[in-house]
Amino acid sequence: MAEILISDPTLRDGNHAVKHQLSAQQIRSYAAAANAARIPVVEVGHGNGLGASSLQVGQALLSDREMLRIAREQLTDVKLQAFGIPGFAKLPDLDGALEEGADLFRVGTHCTEADLTERHITYLRGHSKPVHGVLMMCHMTTVGDLVEQARKMEAYGASGAIVMDSAGALLIDDVRRRVSALVEGTGMAVGYHGHENVSLGVANSIAAVEEGATILDGTARGFGAGAGNTQLEVLVAVLQRLGHETGIDLYRLLEAADLAERELVQTIPTTDSVTIVSGLAGVFSGYSRPVRRIAQEFGVDPRDVFFALGKREVIAGQEDVILEVAAELREHLEVQVDIQVEIREGVA
Amino acid sequence: MAEILISDPTLRDGNHAVKHQLSAQQIRSYAAAANAARIPVVEVGHGNGLGASSLQVGQALLSDREMLRIAREQLTDVKLQAFGIPGFAKLPDLDGALEEGADLFRVGTHCTEADLTERHITYLRGHSKPVHGVLMMCHMTTVGDLVEQARKMEAYGASGAIVMDSAGALLIDDVRRRVSALVEGTGMAVGYHGHENVSLGVANSIAAVEEGATILDGTARGFGAGAGNTQLEVLVAVLQRLGHETGIDLYRLLEAADLAERELVQTIPTTDSVTIVSGLAGVFSGYSRPVRRIAQEFGVDPRDVFFALGKREVIAGQEDVILEVAAELREHLEVQVDIQVEIREGVA
Repeated sequence: MAEILISDPTLRDGNHAVKHQLSAQQIRSYAAAANAARIPVVEVGHGNGLGASSLQVGQALLSDREMLRIAREQLTDVKLQAFGIPGFAKLPDLDGALEEGADLFRVGTHCTEADLTERHITYLRGHSKPVHGVLMMCHMTTVGDLVEQARKMEAYGASGAIVMDSAGALLIDDVRRRVSALVEGTGMAVGYHGHENVSLGVANSIAAVEEGATILDGTARGFGAGAGNTQLEVLVAVLQRLGHETGIDLYRLLEAADLAERELVQTIPTTDSVTIVSGLAGVFSGYSRPVRRIAQEFGVDPRDVFFALGKREVIAGQEDVILEVAAELREHLEVQVDIQVEIREGVA
Repeated sequence: MAEILISDPTLRDGNHAVKHQLSAQQIRSYAAAANAARIPVVEVGHGNGLGASSLQVGQALLSDREMLRIAREQLTDVKLQAFGIPGFAKLPDLDGALEEGADLFRVGTHCTEADLTERHITYLRGHSKPVHGVLMMCHMTTVGDLVEQARKMEAYGASGAIVMDSAGALLIDDVRRRVSALVEGTGMAVGYHGHENVSLGVANSIAAVEEGATILDGTARGFGAGAGNTQLEVLVAVLQRLGHETGIDLYRLLEAADLAERELVQTIPTTDSVTIVSGLAGVFSGYSRPVRRIAQEFGVDPRDVFFALGKREVIAGQEDVILEVAAELREHLEVQVDIQVEIREGVA
């Protein structure tokens, strides 16, 4: 059985669920618990990564460097990972993470935009740091293009490619096709990062491993926006039962998850009607909160808003479109989408 | 793509989560919503089925007949199903369900005890009612024996066999082996009933369909004991996306689930440390509540209690063993199980 590298973005993706307000004490507590559980890689930061804290996408309580520093102090036995999306993350942000002692880097971009990662990956490789390229919203391009995009990242120096299912839109066979193509078509380690919009985070991760993935992401208690991420402690328990090595102490991991529930998580993520629709529509789960709010304001059905957003193929950062869509739906209730037809035709 | 018969035990398995206290108004509301969504089969009753209401396993707020009658009034377009476990369910209980207009019956028993279902299945067939046999705690016997047990039910007159994963202990390949063997080895329709202990309810159900199952169970919002059941509305959404026909109106189903959340569910089931361990240990999820309580009373680790119960292969109705196990663990803390070793060796 393969050895699987578990990467835990509880303190980064979880930040999305609390408007990036994770505190020093929360980061310290969870990082210490993660270290005790020997989770090999712990990622920390603003939900959108280095340099993203802003009025536009949400101001974090702490600076990138503060978050990294606090986690670094606790992570004595495991690795600290920093995540950056070029556009948000500038080179000085990478310098900050390097100075705070990040061991590993992930450089992410929308799945069709690998070109944007060249400068960042090259820069980090120049500092001799391992870099994994993250292809976000992975359902929004073809399998063939995904391989092309990953190859670009490999050419820039990345040693890993992460299939990020940002919208929780991939079904099991969708994951199989993407992972197997990347394993076949690149020389990189391949990873899968799932969300629970349609309750397939764990199953998709296991399918990814069956296709040759060796890196999996999950967060404690699923801490993350919307339906949450693949639930880390479930994933690790299932991997161990299947005979895969992770190096993680499961009892300590369960305790880290319990701590996360008590000290970090405001509402335990669950799969509900809106998250199911956002997954089916293929819309970034970070949209859940504004869609619910705006749909209510406009008196329209949030499910219709999601499917309309899916048709427009919105990506993160295009939240203004929600207002447009909601206004249109309100004005043209008579042309509301027949959801049954939509789903059968596979809008996403 | 196969047509899948969806059977919804929200008003029966959900009763486990509220100590069998579902009220007339709750049953009426949900049954009406299920009817509007055209869920083909709706099951209602005490969590342990007909005749089970008692001090021992919990007294239901309403009688079996009241529950069936209230649901029947609402289920104008879909079928009403009654569930009985011989031992709890006596023949007069079956008479009552027949008189209240149940269209379909399920007769369940521990997976090795099909003999016990003969009288009940024969009796119901004598009343020309279709009967599906339910093999509970399906992880606790071999695949070969499971087929033998199902064949007995078939000989008694059952037209369906339901793999009931009562402990949420089956991983995807465990489900595949069981379902394919039953499809191959019997002439009955085969079904799968899952729980979310290790977040695989939906994935296991899809795997079951791939192996030839044509009946799937799920509950609204996962309403059920412990980590809850396969989440019905997610399951149906995924089935539709995969091109399977269920006859269900998904938007109305999402609304039924939202109604269940508002009016029935006290705590939305989630997969937590204890439910993961109960799943891995292969212990009936109905044990979660007493295990938590007794472990706390005795000052022992509920995870250790679960693994010890798994070793003893406890089944429903043996809750007294919890006290024994907890007392032993307290007295012999020095011989506490090393959980990591247990999990690698696969206790369940």
